[in-house]
Amino acid sequence: MTIKQVIVVRTDLEMGKGKIAGQVGHAAHLLTAAAYESAESTPPSNAWIWYDEWMKTLYRKVVLKADSEAELFRIFGDATKAGLPTIVVHDAGLTQLKSNTVTCVGIGPCPGELIDAITGNLKLL
Amino acid sequence: MTIKQVIVVRTDLEMGKGKIAGQVGHAAHLLTAAAYESAESTPPSNAWIWYDEWMKTLYRKVVLKADSEAELFRIFGDATKAGLPTIVVHDAGLTQLKSNTVTCVGIGPCPGELIDAITGNLKLL
Repeated sequence: MTIKQVIVVRTDLEMGKGKIAGQVGHAAHLLTAAAYESAESTPPSNAWIWYDEWMKTLYRKVVLKADSEAELFRIFGDATKAGLPTIVVHDAGLTQLKSNTVTCVGIGPCPGELIDAITGNLKLL
Repeated sequence: MTIKQVIVVRTDLEMGKGKIAGQVGHAAHLLTAAAYESAESTPPSNAWIWYDEWMKTLYRKVVLKADSEAELFRIFGDATKAGLPTIVVHDAGLTQLKSNTVTCVGIGPCPGELIDAITGNLKLL
């Protein structure tokens, strides 16, 4: 079973590469925090089980692109319904963007086939 | 006290923007994991105290650039000597880069003035 994390970034906002990297950093940070926050739950959460497994590998991260906010919310909805660890990143609006702009969605870590069913149509950023 | 996290990325590797974002994601993920791993230590670790404080704010991330591996190791050394949470990201070499290439250094979250003493000369990516 290949465990991976996928982060989908909006390309229609025309963010610079440093800005994109910061938003993807937020996604990776928040998904990690959520996994740790669920570590003590009973029964064990999938988020923690998958995180723990992922850390034994190369903790693969894949960055994909989507061209609209609507597509990001479609992905968020599908991933949530599938029971996958999922977060939406809102930008604070300090630089480049208006406050609360949705910039990316992070999913996982979780089994690759569960993510691929949702983001398999998207291209690498 | 402004708490922030700084991630310094090498520009001499000519990584694509998706590749850069993934490496910065690794840095944010690993620093978050390290903060949680130190959460139970006695006395409380600075890593956890700063992380906890940072999460009450906008968990600011700043992505900077450096033009060589040597500069990255200079930053890593200085940050480590200063007692700041610090990690080096090595790429697994699955795409674009040779295995084990050092791609970025992550520092913090910690008080901004402690980071600025080390990375204040660097420009935004």
